[in-house]
Amino acid sequence: MARVQREIDYCFKPPGSLGKLEDIARQIAGITGKINNTITKKAIVVMMADNGVYKEGVAMYPQDVTRIGADFVTSGRMGVNFLANHAGADIIAVDVGIQVDVDLEGVIDRKVRYGTANFRHEPAMQRKEAIEAIEIGIAITSQAIDDGYNLLGTGEIGIGNTTASSAVLYALTGASIEKVVGLGAGLSDEAYEQKKSVVRDAVHLHKPDRDDPLDVLAKVGGLDICGMAGTYLACAARRVPVVADGLISNVAALVALRLEPQVIDCILLSHISCEPGAKLLKEITGLEPMLDMDMRLGEGTGCALSFPIIEAALKMTREMGTFASLGKTREEICSPLEAYHGKIQ
Amino acid sequence: MARVQREIDYCFKPPGSLGKLEDIARQIAGITGKINNTITKKAIVVMMADNGVYKEGVAMYPQDVTRIGADFVTSGRMGVNFLANHAGADIIAVDVGIQVDVDLEGVIDRKVRYGTANFRHEPAMQRKEAIEAIEIGIAITSQAIDDGYNLLGTGEIGIGNTTASSAVLYALTGASIEKVVGLGAGLSDEAYEQKKSVVRDAVHLHKPDRDDPLDVLAKVGGLDICGMAGTYLACAARRVPVVADGLISNVAALVALRLEPQVIDCILLSHISCEPGAKLLKEITGLEPMLDMDMRLGEGTGCALSFPIIEAALKMTREMGTFASLGKTREEICSPLEAYHGKIQ
Repeated sequence: MARVQREIDYCFKPPGSLGKLEDIARQIAGITGKINNTITKKAIVVMMADNGVYKEGVAMYPQDVTRIGADFVTSGRMGVNFLANHAGADIIAVDVGIQVDVDLEGVIDRKVRYGTANFRHEPAMQRKEAIEAIEIGIAITSQAIDDGYNLLGTGEIGIGNTTASSAVLYALTGASIEKVVGLGAGLSDEAYEQKKSVVRDAVHLHKPDRDDPLDVLAKVGGLDICGMAGTYLACAARRVPVVADGLISNVAALVALRLEPQVIDCILLSHISCEPGAKLLKEITGLEPMLDMDMRLGEGTGCALSFPIIEAALKMTREMGTFASLGKTREEICSPLEAYHGKIQ
Repeated sequence: MARVQREIDYCFKPPGSLGKLEDIARQIAGITGKINNTITKKAIVVMMADNGVYKEGVAMYPQDVTRIGADFVTSGRMGVNFLANHAGADIIAVDVGIQVDVDLEGVIDRKVRYGTANFRHEPAMQRKEAIEAIEIGIAITSQAIDDGYNLLGTGEIGIGNTTASSAVLYALTGASIEKVVGLGAGLSDEAYEQKKSVVRDAVHLHKPDRDDPLDVLAKVGGLDICGMAGTYLACAARRVPVVADGLISNVAALVALRLEPQVIDCILLSHISCEPGAKLLKEITGLEPMLDMDMRLGEGTGCALSFPIIEAALKMTREMGTFASLGKTREEICSPLEAYHGKIQ
């Protein structure tokens, strides 16, 4: 990383003036262990699952929209599709727990169960099911890396999954309910109050152990969150950069970090979503978003939008001119001015 | 714009969930007057000029770096080059006032004068020179639009131009000196104090009329700022979207807005730069940045990075699936849930 920063500082520009582009180039060098990095194949892993807590009236759309989303994502019609196409990225769509059978070409069937249970009344899933969903995320992602993907993003489709994400965040952090629950896909005031009650009541009912992310996931999580945590873990293990999207994706990142703190080094944050929980997660993880687009769609849309930025960052040292090409160092060029200010006598 | 928003709302996603991507699609429809827009040819117009105020020790690099920048930008070695290439954008480089003769293929020679005078002691230029430089910006940009460019960005190269920009901003707004003067390319504390003094003293000396942007430009501006203001004016007149970059570019936008307030409708803000003046300008213009990259290089680098986002926004309504394709309206799909919350009886 230091060597890359030196190369960046040779470039014909004030030191640090390309900001986060420099951070990205340095971070990816640290991830891969290589000075020169090129993204040759990129994808968004979209985990799809249903949430039993839907029954509590916490979502804006009917539960069937998850299945329709699975259909649309494989036929190229979701938000994440046009943005992934624009970025030249593929989509790897995984059914990790949709409530009905989904027989679609292009959807990888790794259904752990037909949606989670309604965690307002019973645990969302068994602990072993949470582990299984994480392992599915690891396996799918490892396979993608074996297939040559060297930049991955994390996406999801699942009605009710911002409620599960908020519950996981609430359980893991103990932050105030207003800091973890947002309007999701656009709730009314009434439904927002309901969503806060459900999250609070569920966590008080199950009392998940905040030091045990698997306990939290099993009691108030979602299968998509588990699968996404697996994607982060696999990318870190295989030293591949992985991009976080909005609330759900960032909650999954937090879960992965609680399981293995070093995962943080491999994560890039694409954007800051409108959800209040996204702001809290930014504070906890320290990850800095590239984009500020007021987006709150999920699916991995933010990841797709950030891919061209990441690829641009990696071109900097290969394509920019240097001070050395002038036969001088930066210091030699700047010294007359520093002399003016008495820095050099 | 309303028709485009309706088309966006037909898409299979919660209303408003693509945030600024929706704003961009709507704004560009308003600019062009067309529902469907595609960017077919894009460029960054890079205005290059020197600033006599350089002599006051307000810049980090020697003045010759402007000429070197002209050389590098035409040979593809500047920061804006690799980012423009990455975005598939061209660069239109214009010498509007470099202090020496620049005989380079690819630099359009429209030199108004050999750099401005040192505005710490005398007016930067004559009023008619400021007008001439604005008209050059208008002419170059109109030609580019005639040549088929339908998305333009504003860039600049010019040692000392953040000082001129801060002085223009200070004169136009009367804001506190700390809000308008930043570290530029990376000044020492001493040079920063010097830069603040120079800006304050120059404005107090010349007393430019804050209601007359041409007077402000002539007394404490720069030829690049004038040229860039011309680019904004031409884009607005020709109904072509134009992207603002960092401090200098935003100051030029403010000048254009003071000359003709309707120009605001045609401007998109790429990123929020580290310079304090950029934050002030965002407050004044109300323009919302897409990117938050801690960049402070100028040249149009932020514009280039935002082009893929703008192009993505325009694909939304063409490529996304709709509720209608399910044979239902959004309202029909959502009504069971709203019934749950008693919204529909």
